[in-house]
Amino acid sequence: MTDAAPRAMSRPLVPQGAPVVGIVGGGQLARMCAGPATELGLGVVVLAESTDAAAAQVYAHAPVGRADDLEQLQELARVCDVVTFDHEHVPADLLAALESEGAVLHPSPAALLHAQDKIVMRRALGEAGLPMPRWQAVGSSAELEEFAAGEWPVVLKTPRGGYDGKGVMLVTGPGDLERAGAWFDRAGDEPLLAEEAVPFARELAVMVARRPGGEVRSWPVVHTVQEQGICTRVEAPASDLDPTLAQDVRRAAEQLAADLGVTGVMAVEIFETGAPTDTDRGWVVNELAMRPHNSGHWTQDGSVTDQFEQHLRAVLDLPLGETTTRSPHTVMANVLGGSAEDLHAASRRVMDQDAGARLHLYGKEVRPGRKVGHVTVAGDDLDDLRQRAAVARGLLEGTDDAPTTEGDTP
Amino acid sequence: MTDAAPRAMSRPLVPQGAPVVGIVGGGQLARMCAGPATELGLGVVVLAESTDAAAAQVYAHAPVGRADDLEQLQELARVCDVVTFDHEHVPADLLAALESEGAVLHPSPAALLHAQDKIVMRRALGEAGLPMPRWQAVGSSAELEEFAAGEWPVVLKTPRGGYDGKGVMLVTGPGDLERAGAWFDRAGDEPLLAEEAVPFARELAVMVARRPGGEVRSWPVVHTVQEQGICTRVEAPASDLDPTLAQDVRRAAEQLAADLGVTGVMAVEIFETGAPTDTDRGWVVNELAMRPHNSGHWTQDGSVTDQFEQHLRAVLDLPLGETTTRSPHTVMANVLGGSAEDLHAASRRVMDQDAGARLHLYGKEVRPGRKVGHVTVAGDDLDDLRQRAAVARGLLEGTDDAPTTEGDTP
Repeated sequence: MTDAAPRAMSRPLVPQGAPVVGIVGGGQLARMCAGPATELGLGVVVLAESTDAAAAQVYAHAPVGRADDLEQLQELARVCDVVTFDHEHVPADLLAALESEGAVLHPSPAALLHAQDKIVMRRALGEAGLPMPRWQAVGSSAELEEFAAGEWPVVLKTPRGGYDGKGVMLVTGPGDLERAGAWFDRAGDEPLLAEEAVPFARELAVMVARRPGGEVRSWPVVHTVQEQGICTRVEAPASDLDPTLAQDVRRAAEQLAADLGVTGVMAVEIFETGAPTDTDRGWVVNELAMRPHNSGHWTQDGSVTDQFEQHLRAVLDLPLGETTTRSPHTVMANVLGGSAEDLHAASRRVMDQDAGARLHLYGKEVRPGRKVGHVTVAGDDLDDLRQRAAVARGLLEGTDDAPTTEGDTP
Repeated sequence: MTDAAPRAMSRPLVPQGAPVVGIVGGGQLARMCAGPATELGLGVVVLAESTDAAAAQVYAHAPVGRADDLEQLQELARVCDVVTFDHEHVPADLLAALESEGAVLHPSPAALLHAQDKIVMRRALGEAGLPMPRWQAVGSSAELEEFAAGEWPVVLKTPRGGYDGKGVMLVTGPGDLERAGAWFDRAGDEPLLAEEAVPFARELAVMVARRPGGEVRSWPVVHTVQEQGICTRVEAPASDLDPTLAQDVRRAAEQLAADLGVTGVMAVEIFETGAPTDTDRGWVVNELAMRPHNSGHWTQDGSVTDQFEQHLRAVLDLPLGETTTRSPHTVMANVLGGSAEDLHAASRRVMDQDAGARLHLYGKEVRPGRKVGHVTVAGDDLDDLRQRAAVARGLLEGTDDAPTTEGDTP
């Protein structure tokens, strides 16, 4: 057997009573469940894209298979007690087939659909009475122009498959309609989602966990700093946030998790639009994700229970852990592939500069713009933490020439 | 290939520049390195005792092999950049052979010997000028009686292979000399270690990490509560500890790590004998261990950098992480095999009682007295933490009938 051959799918050896969780997808989210699963004494089987996938490198059981292959999903369900997801790209019809055969899926296909299809999501948010941008399902450039009603720009989204700014077009005026037309052509009979471009002060997010038994816990609301549609930094909790708004957001997320029947963790991405008033809650929902999420990575070092452990507890219907913070402030900086190709050498430089920086690398080769890791720092002084996070990120992306005290020529 | 067959030994797939650490021994200490190794983006190969060893369950690369088989150790060294240890039972002659072939071993055989042989350890402590019980290498009951010089009891130890109270005999008086004689017979030409039975107030421990480059960091001194020679609880930092003594202990441990050439983490177990004076430092060294240690498990939830991550950083000569505490108090309770055979069901009850309790299970089947996991709780109120730790331990050992709010009949 070589490393290139798929590993056989079998139920892992676990002690008496210990459950086995199947994870579809071998990305960094599955990878970061490894530590918590180890400590909780759980078995894990990851259905990975390849033997060198982020998660496949670290789990004892990571058979290679496809998330759109029913037989492989069935095999995974057979050797596990519950199946959950690293991503939202498992076709809904396969999930339905699995569920009908008695597989235990968390989140359920019905709940997951709200994170797979943005039109379904918008409809459900409307039913839940949550604030959101004006929206409409549109089937043509003409319908899009009608939706805009002369108020440009509007946002056009593919309901399925988008992430990190992909599948989102800012339509600035009638001059962009031809470009939008190409998207409608590609979509065929499927409508696209048109949304009002809401002016907002900043982007927030809240992570919430819910277990089948009904228990729900959310973490503090965070500020997600975005650059070119990609989250580059998260500050937890969001600084100077109106406490009424923060409480409203957390309660809304918890209620939404219950309304949608979420099991596992869910990220609710939010635009903060202003101070709450009698007629305006001061925020609207932008997106949902039904899995551990980038906006929750700070919990690994900043919360008593991190999102990866909480997700495992939730999908196994175990009592949820405390979500209180460990420090007044935690700042998480994403590391994107840059000029530093040897991330290990770069992380040595980070450690050398900052003994308190917490490194999280995904086992990925560096490619420009690819998320390859993140760093967190925690403490009392937010400005200092922002600076430390920026220095660490700069060293890891190779965009910083900060001097080091070791390994360099004198 | 079945789970019963040994997995082939090959260098793991890791990203460019990432090093691979080999760990001899697949116990819980190797297992608990899994989370930190994942987050730091390191490769790990564990030479495990069996496919169901604690660490073999969780690592992608855990070939089965023996710690006393030179060929298997050579094979491990071949696929790894550095080799370290889950335990101290690798024969010294095999370590010497590996080292002579150019294998990178941390700690080095020369340093490790101080944790493998208590007579060597006592001699080195004497050279370092550290306080310790009066001791002597003795070859017979007659020599033992001479050492005691009428002052009973004395402690008789086998220099190698003892742990958790095994290999230690309290010789209460001349009436025990016949029993001691059997130990001398078994030891043959090897001397045993006789020590003064030092009256002490409590047992303390300090963990220290040192990297080949020379950097040293210690954690705060902890109180290790022992029952029948086994540590049952650790309180970090040790409460009401004289600050002069605490500082003296930390500095001594850091200096000792340098004197012995330790690379990796080392535990220094200590008897606190009284308040420090001009002529008495108030403590003596009991034992050394040169690996992550039970007295450092609290660091997983109580320190910015835990002992497992620090050990990996140290053996790779990476800059060491901060060792400051995250909370005023952290209490760690060991879980020994008791009447609760299904640890997963028991851990569910702990989670149900205490959302802030941090569970760490070793993937082991329950056997009476076997260390199968630990729990930590952290916060401001030490008495409350002691009680929470005791409740969690009781639930996990099956010695507590604490009511639960779920899963029980009404």
